[in-house]
Amino acid sequence: MSDDHFNKNKGSILKLFTPGPVKVPDRVLNAMALANDTHRSKPYSEMHKLAVEGLQKLLFTKNDCLIFTSSATGIMEACVRNLIKKDEKALFLSIGAFGDRWYEIGVSNGKESIKADIEWGKALTPEIVKEELSKHDYAIVCIQANETSTGVYNPLNEIIPIIKDSGALICVDATSSMAGIKLEVDKLNIDVCLASVQKCFALPPGLALCSISSKALEKTKEVKDRGLYLDFLSIQKKNIVYQTPNTPPIPQIRGLVVQLDHILNQEGIENRFERHKTLGKRTREWANEIGFELFPEKGYESDTVSTMKNSINIDFEKMISTLLTKGYRIVNGYGSLKNKTFRIGHMGEITINELDNMLEVLTDIISELK
Amino acid sequence: MSDDHFNKNKGSILKLFTPGPVKVPDRVLNAMALANDTHRSKPYSEMHKLAVEGLQKLLFTKNDCLIFTSSATGIMEACVRNLIKKDEKALFLSIGAFGDRWYEIGVSNGKESIKADIEWGKALTPEIVKEELSKHDYAIVCIQANETSTGVYNPLNEIIPIIKDSGALICVDATSSMAGIKLEVDKLNIDVCLASVQKCFALPPGLALCSISSKALEKTKEVKDRGLYLDFLSIQKKNIVYQTPNTPPIPQIRGLVVQLDHILNQEGIENRFERHKTLGKRTREWANEIGFELFPEKGYESDTVSTMKNSINIDFEKMISTLLTKGYRIVNGYGSLKNKTFRIGHMGEITINELDNMLEVLTDIISELK
Repeated sequence: MSDDHFNKNKGSILKLFTPGPVKVPDRVLNAMALANDTHRSKPYSEMHKLAVEGLQKLLFTKNDCLIFTSSATGIMEACVRNLIKKDEKALFLSIGAFGDRWYEIGVSNGKESIKADIEWGKALTPEIVKEELSKHDYAIVCIQANETSTGVYNPLNEIIPIIKDSGALICVDATSSMAGIKLEVDKLNIDVCLASVQKCFALPPGLALCSISSKALEKTKEVKDRGLYLDFLSIQKKNIVYQTPNTPPIPQIRGLVVQLDHILNQEGIENRFERHKTLGKRTREWANEIGFELFPEKGYESDTVSTMKNSINIDFEKMISTLLTKGYRIVNGYGSLKNKTFRIGHMGEITINELDNMLEVLTDIISELK
Repeated sequence: MSDDHFNKNKGSILKLFTPGPVKVPDRVLNAMALANDTHRSKPYSEMHKLAVEGLQKLLFTKNDCLIFTSSATGIMEACVRNLIKKDEKALFLSIGAFGDRWYEIGVSNGKESIKADIEWGKALTPEIVKEELSKHDYAIVCIQANETSTGVYNPLNEIIPIIKDSGALICVDATSSMAGIKLEVDKLNIDVCLASVQKCFALPPGLALCSISSKALEKTKEVKDRGLYLDFLSIQKKNIVYQTPNTPPIPQIRGLVVQLDHILNQEGIENRFERHKTLGKRTREWANEIGFELFPEKGYESDTVSTMKNSINIDFEKMISTLLTKGYRIVNGYGSLKNKTFRIGHMGEITINELDNMLEVLTDIISELK
């Protein structure tokens, strides 16, 4: 039964140009297939230490870097549960579906949550941020670095200093850009910078991580009813001895260490960021040649995921399913953007050549469908 | 760097007789090393469906079986957050460290939590349960099937009907017994039966699962401020179409399907339960020969983990570290039981022969240390 099932669906045949989960390199799959020692053993702690130290380098931070057995949504919920007291307010500056989700997490946890709705496709501006901050005092402000649904990358260098000036803690969801687009946590003084690993890290899903400032940890101590599973303090306390309070996803942590070594010591961190810039540029040039208008406003297009409008009136579902028969997966628009947009993920270990090859096949398909 | 690190610590050399994480069979490691499609693809949903249907067979239930990207603690927290309203009380019938943890989860989530402390080493009795239930009206009652810290297996057939009669929902943490010791969810009418997979399932950690009754799902609808990440309703809604609301740990799910196939169609479910009975019996016979008194009261010893007292006054740390040099890992007592007890895990894929071989080596070490 299972042999048949897995041979039939062996994913390695399929080339994923998706905004996560993405193609995982063999070095990671092989490392994950090694047997495990327990999470209270010395070999485990040595591995955990390598993960933490590698993340600190990747994020340009001296802050603690914590590991969660969860998806990124788990840490988005942790921010809400750990950093907002009963009489305090949270501001969610949403530019798309994942911003909306964070606001829903705030509401569903019974926290006083206020959402600023920015038109999808637009980025945050200093003006918008200033105006929103002037309305109330906020304990925390939550933003996306890269909004996976619209393909917009926020101008973090311009807006985060304004948020910090207000006295609020700043939480940044960098899920679809961390390890692909440069983000310097200490320079911007980010309190929580979070991501999962099935995007630019090119790992299988099952692990999320974040950096956390001492200010955020201090704040956590003041917040009641935080629960245990997503409690920053419990996790940080064990992180100091390179463990986790609960059993962690050991294979993914081993994969993370392998990828951090690759990023920092093989490819080189700046080379990796440059490659993603080139992947983004190349995809946008191609879209321009075909006649696809980009969904994001000019200047704010993400270098890890491109969202294109249906400017040439083509059947997206047919385009995507035909491309799938050629061995490539790209994806339709997210939620309400389905069939109005489609998305190409160009993150993780994808090379310029691989992108060019896929775009060539896609161009042929579009010619036939037009 | 990483090559050296992983060769040096290659876990496959080490034979784990731990109460989780345990040794993972090659068929699982190989399956987990296959590349992944995305969690919104048809191949993923087919795999998720196999997992759900396999779990229903394993647990003898028609209830929904849900998959969480979390450790078992995540679902313990989900029970607390989803099933207790503001004016309601929860009862934690604790017989050890994991019962205590569940109570702490209740308290840390701001729920009105009452703990009955049973002396460690003892099991719950119908008398204790009746007495505790008579004190208040409870919305939920939380118990361990197998308490991993003490090695006690509760008499579920005797106590669960009493709890159900009280009208409370019953949540059972079967983390270190599910897939090793027979537990019939529908026969006992269990509302939530949860576990993680790094114990008797013999998978690497990173996934937890539970069955959930329609009564528990109905109750969830009445509870406010449940949050999103551990929300039973959001997870169940996506489970119907064999997906998860957030990105799941795809490699572990593939491993789970492989193991469920092995358990149900290769080894045979009843053979598996019998093997664990034999492993437990053999370990207790060995302890008796050596002179180790069992920590659990007679008749309630677990068949997946044996906890032994230091009746022969031996240096446990030395015994354990010497055994480690021979390639076997067993573990010291949990928390306050450290050095007063030690534990041998005999769960997952361990064979009688493998257990006998380890016990032979351990016997020699004990002779030398005496």
